[in-house]
Amino acid sequence: MSTSPKRVLVISGPNLDRLGKREPSIYGTTTLDDIHKAVEEVARSEGVEVSFLQSNHEGELVTAIGRAADGGFHGIVMNGAGLTHTSVVLHDAIRASGLPVVEVHITNTAAREPFRHHSITAGACLGTVAGFGPASYVLGLLGLVYHLQQRES
Amino acid sequence: MSTSPKRVLVISGPNLDRLGKREPSIYGTTTLDDIHKAVEEVARSEGVEVSFLQSNHEGELVTAIGRAADGGFHGIVMNGAGLTHTSVVLHDAIRASGLPVVEVHITNTAAREPFRHHSITAGACLGTVAGFGPASYVLGLLGLVYHLQQRES
Amino acid sequence: MSTSPKRVLVISGPNLDRLGKREPSIYGTTTLDDIHKAVEEVARSEGVEVSFLQSNHEGELVTAIGRAADGGFHGIVMNGAGLTHTSVVLHDAIRASGLPVVEVHITNTAAREPFRHHSITAGACLGTVAGFGPASYVLGLLGLVYHLQQRES
Amino acid sequence: MSTSPKRVLVISGPNLDRLGKREPSIYGTTTLDDIHKAVEEVARSEGVEVSFLQSNHEGELVTAIGRAADGGFHGIVMNGAGLTHTSVVLHDAIRASGLPVVEVHITNTAAREPFRHHSITAGACLGTVAGFGPASYVLGLLGLVYHLQQRES
Amino acid sequence: MSTSPKRVLVISGPNLDRLGKREPSIYGTTTLDDIHKAVEEVARSEGVEVSFLQSNHEGELVTAIGRAADGGFHGIVMNGAGLTHTSVVLHDAIRASGLPVVEVHITNTAAREPFRHHSITAGACLGTVAGFGPASYVLGLLGLVYHLQQRES
Amino acid sequence: MSTSPKRVLVISGPNLDRLGKREPSIYGTTTLDDIHKAVEEVARSEGVEVSFLQSNHEGELVTAIGRAADGGFHGIVMNGAGLTHTSVVLHDAIRASGLPVVEVHITNTAAREPFRHHSITAGACLGTVAGFGPASYVLGLLGLVYHLQQRES
Amino acid sequence: MSTSPKRVLVISGPNLDRLGKREPSIYGTTTLDDIHKAVEEVARSEGVEVSFLQSNHEGELVTAIGRAADGGFHGIVMNGAGLTHTSVVLHDAIRASGLPVVEVHITNTAAREPFRHHSITAGACLGTVAGFGPASYVLGLLGLVYHLQQRES
Amino acid sequence: MSTSPKRVLVISGPNLDRLGKREPSIYGTTTLDDIHKAVEEVARSEGVEVSFLQSNHEGELVTAIGRAADGGFHGIVMNGAGLTHTSVVLHDAIRASGLPVVEVHITNTAAREPFRHHSITAGACLGTVAGFGPASYVLGLLGLVYHLQQRES
Amino acid sequence: MSTSPKRVLVISGPNLDRLGKREPSIYGTTTLDDIHKAVEEVARSEGVEVSFLQSNHEGELVTAIGRAADGGFHGIVMNGAGLTHTSVVLHDAIRASGLPVVEVHITNTAAREPFRHHSITAGACLGTVAGFGPASYVLGLLGLVYHLQQRES
Amino acid sequence: MSTSPKRVLVISGPNLDRLGKREPSIYGTTTLDDIHKAVEEVARSEGVEVSFLQSNHEGELVTAIGRAADGGFHGIVMNGAGLTHTSVVLHDAIRASGLPVVEVHITNTAAREPFRHHSITAGACLGTVAGFGPASYVLGLLGLVYHLQQRES
Amino acid sequence: MSTSPKRVLVISGPNLDRLGKREPSIYGTTTLDDIHKAVEEVARSEGVEVSFLQSNHEGELVTAIGRAADGGFHGIVMNGAGLTHTSVVLHDAIRASGLPVVEVHITNTAAREPFRHHSITAGACLGTVAGFGPASYVLGLLGLVYHLQQRES
Amino acid sequence: MSTSPKRVLVISGPNLDRLGKREPSIYGTTTLDDIHKAVEEVARSEGVEVSFLQSNHEGELVTAIGRAADGGFHGIVMNGAGLTHTSVVLHDAIRASGLPVVEVHITNTAAREPFRHHSITAGACLGTVAGFGPASYVLGLLGLVYHLQQRES
Repeated sequence: MSTSPKRVLVISGPNLDRLGKREPSIYGTTTLDDIHKAVEEVARSEGVEVSFLQSNHEGELVTAIGRAADGGFHGIVMNGAGLTHTSVVLHDAIRASGLPVVEVHITNTAAREPFRHHSITAGACLGTVAGFGPASYVLGLLGLVYHLQQRES
Repeated sequence: MSTSPKRVLVISGPNLDRLGKREPSIYGTTTLDDIHKAVEEVARSEGVEVSFLQSNHEGELVTAIGRAADGGFHGIVMNGAGLTHTSVVLHDAIRASGLPVVEVHITNTAAREPFRHHSITAGACLGTVAGFGPASYVLGLLGLVYHLQQRES
Repeated sequence: MSTSPKRVLVISGPNLDRLGKREPSIYGTTTLDDIHKAVEEVARSEGVEVSFLQSNHEGELVTAIGRAADGGFHGIVMNGAGLTHTSVVLHDAIRASGLPVVEVHITNTAAREPFRHHSITAGACLGTVAGFGPASYVLGLLGLVYHLQQRES
Repeated sequence: MSTSPKRVLVISGPNLDRLGKREPSIYGTTTLDDIHKAVEEVARSEGVEVSFLQSNHEGELVTAIGRAADGGFHGIVMNGAGLTHTSVVLHDAIRASGLPVVEVHITNTAAREPFRHHSITAGACLGTVAGFGPASYVLGLLGLVYHLQQRES
Repeated sequence: MSTSPKRVLVISGPNLDRLGKREPSIYGTTTLDDIHKAVEEVARSEGVEVSFLQSNHEGELVTAIGRAADGGFHGIVMNGAGLTHTSVVLHDAIRASGLPVVEVHITNTAAREPFRHHSITAGACLGTVAGFGPASYVLGLLGLVYHLQQRES
Repeated sequence: MSTSPKRVLVISGPNLDRLGKREPSIYGTTTLDDIHKAVEEVARSEGVEVSFLQSNHEGELVTAIGRAADGGFHGIVMNGAGLTHTSVVLHDAIRASGLPVVEVHITNTAAREPFRHHSITAGACLGTVAGFGPASYVLGLLGLVYHLQQRES
Repeated sequence: MSTSPKRVLVISGPNLDRLGKREPSIYGTTTLDDIHKAVEEVARSEGVEVSFLQSNHEGELVTAIGRAADGGFHGIVMNGAGLTHTSVVLHDAIRASGLPVVEVHITNTAAREPFRHHSITAGACLGTVAGFGPASYVLGLLGLVYHLQQRES
Repeated sequence: MSTSPKRVLVISGPNLDRLGKREPSIYGTTTLDDIHKAVEEVARSEGVEVSFLQSNHEGELVTAIGRAADGGFHGIVMNGAGLTHTSVVLHDAIRASGLPVVEVHITNTAAREPFRHHSITAGACLGTVAGFGPASYVLGLLGLVYHLQQRES
Repeated sequence: MSTSPKRVLVISGPNLDRLGKREPSIYGTTTLDDIHKAVEEVARSEGVEVSFLQSNHEGELVTAIGRAADGGFHGIVMNGAGLTHTSVVLHDAIRASGLPVVEVHITNTAAREPFRHHSITAGACLGTVAGFGPASYVLGLLGLVYHLQQRES
Repeated sequence: MSTSPKRVLVISGPNLDRLGKREPSIYGTTTLDDIHKAVEEVARSEGVEVSFLQSNHEGELVTAIGRAADGGFHGIVMNGAGLTHTSVVLHDAIRASGLPVVEVHITNTAAREPFRHHSITAGACLGTVAGFGPASYVLGLLGLVYHLQQRES
Repeated sequence: MSTSPKRVLVISGPNLDRLGKREPSIYGTTTLDDIHKAVEEVARSEGVEVSFLQSNHEGELVTAIGRAADGGFHGIVMNGAGLTHTSVVLHDAIRASGLPVVEVHITNTAAREPFRHHSITAGACLGTVAGFGPASYVLGLLGLVYHLQQRES
Repeated sequence: MSTSPKRVLVISGPNLDRLGKREPSIYGTTTLDDIHKAVEEVARSEGVEVSFLQSNHEGELVTAIGRAADGGFHGIVMNGAGLTHTSVVLHDAIRASGLPVVEVHITNTAAREPFRHHSITAGACLGTVAGFGPASYVLGLLGLVYHLQQRES
């Protein structure tokens, strides 16, 4: 199993399709496409295959997470966006996925409004990365890759 | 109206399509199909017609509940899964449905994490059944049938 | 062990001796005796022996639960009434009993005053049934019987 | 019905048998017997019959309240003592009694420890009297008598 | 001092000038004048002089309470109305008055909205009477008179 | 009754006399007089008579609301200002008034400090309008007029 | 830009497709179509173009709000229904939209269950209108139009 | 008084009659009788007389504590079990007893469920011992004896 | 501007007219007049003019604060008394005043009842001084004078 | 004792060594040395001797406070910085010191983040001064000196 | 291993160096040296070696606990003083130590201020002893010795 | 400035000196030295100089953070350990440092005890990395380096 490359699903939740177009003072001017390119580049250098999904529908995220293992993915990098703070359903999907999931956030949620200080999904994840702008995705991928390598050795 | 058989809609919320495939230590190895068969069997012996719906989309659940009465259903058995603890929208749909709804849970939610101890939807329902594994659905159906019979007599 | 019939203790807590006599708008006109008869009938058809206990004394309930296993009972159906929301002692008795206990409520407690929304005892139980009127006892018994059968197979 | 005298049950909860013997700095030196005599005197002048009950057992209080109407009582004056702040069971008994119940306290509970500031039982009562020492019982009786007279006129 | 009659100030807070005119389903049809007459009658039979004050201004209530002792009053019966639940200023006035103050409420506040369950002023008072309709004022006066007599003996 | 014009009382609470003079970054430069003129203009075109009251005294607001119906008013538009978040007394006055009251706020209180997110008075009102600057008064008046017309038809 | 008419998107969230058909005691008998017609009429008289969207899917609402500006809309009137009290995702969509959004509610949410007293979305909006029945939509549109006119002048 | 031996009452609350028979993973296999023997042995070596009481009835515990001083006891060692976290009545009994009471727990309650982290009774006691298994009783007795000796010297 | 003397308004809230007459164990025997004299003396030595206002009416305090700047005052020293912990209206008045306001308290409120530990007004002020008895006023004046001098330099 | 000069210890807690070097927008550009000089100047004019201590170690502050009385100090002026909001240990040290301690803060903590609104140490102090910038130290010293003089007279 | 004597580290946290010198009304007149002597005496009679450490520095306590096992200690008796209620760091040190730790308190913390009712460290300990004055240390040592003996047998 | 290499300080808080020696089931067997080596290796490949500090003393951490900028560091990677959840002082030190600080945790704190779910320090940081075991330090360093590069470009 170790000879075939690892496959990672990169998921972005609600409103992230608008990234780079609105509220640049908070989220910057990088678009989600820019992030996907940066992630892909790092993935290639790490010998990992990445697929991308963005959806504004909680249900689509749940379905994708639930089917990821059957679809041949070994792990997930997920930016749950606003669902992070409210969605028990997403928490359950992560736990039910049987895969390591890394939670990433572009901003440092701990430095924003109080309702963004608590994550309902993080407790079901492997780990979290927050506050590094678009680089949070890349760091999350590296952390996931490291974890997958550790588990195999 | 009492001569035609009662029709019941059995709804299962997010992640329940994964039942029996993941986390068997919590949810067991029974699949949702197995549950549907068991419910159907009991329904037949009670002279009730049942239809099934599973969706990971809150919106689809809301639509189905909202249209259930117009669709000829006399009651609903619903496992709201993780939405149970967060969805005011589902609460409103149940109230707006004009039908008796029974909330069922496979596990005993009161014995799990604190965020599963409170149900936002239960207050809009007729009653609840939780903790009997797949049998919760069957007990919920029996309770609903009993209620429908009572109301008529 | 499977050849001798299962024995179930049906316990009703404080004020339930008044059932059917007061506040019929909330609790209906069925008396506790009526419920016992309905439970007995179902028990007979399920091949289960049932015994009944009603007490206004928490201490008597605790003693009965604690001695139930030694007394040859295989499970308990319990309506803890108001103690449901306050009694750590009852919670401990259920856990100490070594028996599966099913919590039942005549009304849908989630639709009543906020202080009835949380159960201290439910977390120590196998499962709960609430809101079906007197039928909650019958459904609770069926759920318990199903559980006992499952455990043996 | 108005020709026969009204009958009132005066109930005192846990620890009130110790009244006047311990902690006189808080509760004074009057004993429960002294209070009963003072209540009886006022009852006589109001043309009311009074009976007294003191118990340290919540269950006995519940039973007495539940049977009071059948026992010919028209109302209850009750000092629930420490149960005031914890007993949902007593709350339910009052509601189930179908009788007007007046809650009385010897001390001004609002001026004591925070856990004595909230009464679980008061919401089920007709009214409350607190802080007048032994006279709280007498004032509670007068209030109850006034209420019974009002209801009849 | 015991030869001259006791003088009591009876204070009614905001909105009580509307009593009997609005929301009779909650407050009844008795007007504040009716209450004053009933109180006066009882006062006369108890040999006590009473004065009355109603104001919608917290400031006037504070001033009246603060000057009551200098004005020759021996105690106060006060219905703080909505200020009961919010006014630290009134709490302080009662404490600063150096007089025994009895808090009275026409309705049983414990049976109404949650924000009426806690009294900020009661902790500064001698005692409370609530839920007896207009008779709460009379019972409060009797309790105060009893207290003044006790203190002297 | 429908032939004589409707009369509406427009009430502004504490500090609103300072409007337009201080903190223009939050409240703008429009004065309360400007608002009154705008309201009057709309009232005239709607065939409604309006009267205005501003007071820094809770007691005066309470009195005005309490007497509004007797004074011939059919409804009230009220900006309770800071009292919105603290005054049970004002809540009670609105309920006791027997009139439909519309709560208006110049700013969007939900976007300001947390202690401005909850209104104690809104629950006693017909409805609320907030965040439209001085236009909130006008919209509130229109909503009230619409309500009065609906009730009559 | 001021010569072409303003375009406004009117959004209605989950369950509002059922309006007028269920729970008329709370929501009245007006349907969503009736509301749309009333809004359209007022829009026409104000020289504004309106488009309508109703969805039970949070994701569709998010997408519509996110694309509104690119789609040529100048503002949004939104009834978030039950999502109002739970959806951080909707809050973020409003903020990301770059458009003024007016939150409207048919009922006075402050007078209903406690879980309807807090809005997660209102803080991201321009303002709110609640409690005027179907007229809330019309008032919300007027407020939005007024705001757009102000901003231009 | 110092020549006659000190007498100590050792009280065990609800469910402790089941000790050693159930849930040995939490409470161990020592029975309450074993504990009593160990306590008696230490009492003898310390020249103290001990009596034992176990009851599942809060009322019996209250009565025993209330009468302990009159019964010639100089102090109490009490394991209130589940009542520790809920019983204001027991708190009051301890305060009313006029005796030093030592609260003991077999397990370290601070390391168990959150609802066991707070003791309502401890504040009325002399001190507490928890977490040493059956030895908690012995340590509690030694602490009480030490206290009684200190007070005399 | 620096040649004419600074003018400071010294405001004392509800109940402070009773200072020195009641509860000397908490507030001491100094009267408000004594404080005014002490403040005046220090003001003279600092070359500042002071005016005094005491009122039991929140509305009068609000009005005075709102008009202070127009009245030629450069700053305010205010003891809000009990209003400190409840009055959003006073908070708003301070912010609307456009003047530096110093909050002073005679006692150390942090060492008194919990409801005195939080100040609603302090967040709108320049600073606070508490616990120095009557000297708190003098220190508050000195702090304000220092601030005014700093701002000018 | 009154002939020898009073000695005061001025303590500054964690991070105050950085004062004037970082975050000047919040704390200004004055350094701790500047403050010490200003304090010394005022101390001299008041005839008081002052010593200074700054430490980032809670333990050193505790030790210094504990030994202050033995070291000949008559009082302490302390800026506990961030420890103000978290340190029970510092609270206890102040109480154990047997000296009057004045708590000072450079900024108005009530106007900053919520976690700075509550002081754990203030309740153990004589009084507090906050919000006057470096002058808070000077005012604190004056308040302490005044207190020491009062106590002697 | 059982032939060599057990070694126990006795740790006392911040402010305990002041024991017996300050606040004797709360903590008594016994010094920490007196306690050490009493502990040593009991240790000798139990065949245990004890070492003592007192520090006002959390960091030193953490280091000592962390190195205790390597230093040859078999268990720890610790009075964390004020850190008990705030220090997650100490909690972690206890858990990381791999040794049984007994928490002791001189006073009955449950009978003091609310902020002393919860222990952050107790959940990481073997057990707790509180309220017996200096004897709490001795009882804690005995409990620890008993535990070490049990574990070996 | 861009030609000289960036310097980063890597700080580890209380108990981390014990890493790898205790509780390997939670923290693994990697020691802090192992982590330092891994960090150094990555630093070298990124052309960054790293220095390391571990301390059990909050005060030493505060001092190091406060002096880091003067010491020539461009950023900090910090594992605050247990102080993360309690230390306002550390929060202030980070803000006062004027440097970007990355908070790292070995474990996924969101999946542990509730008191580890909230970070007091994270809000003052650039970002956080948690849950990747020792790799969290490396990812934190990479994130910091990325941030420093971004800022320069």
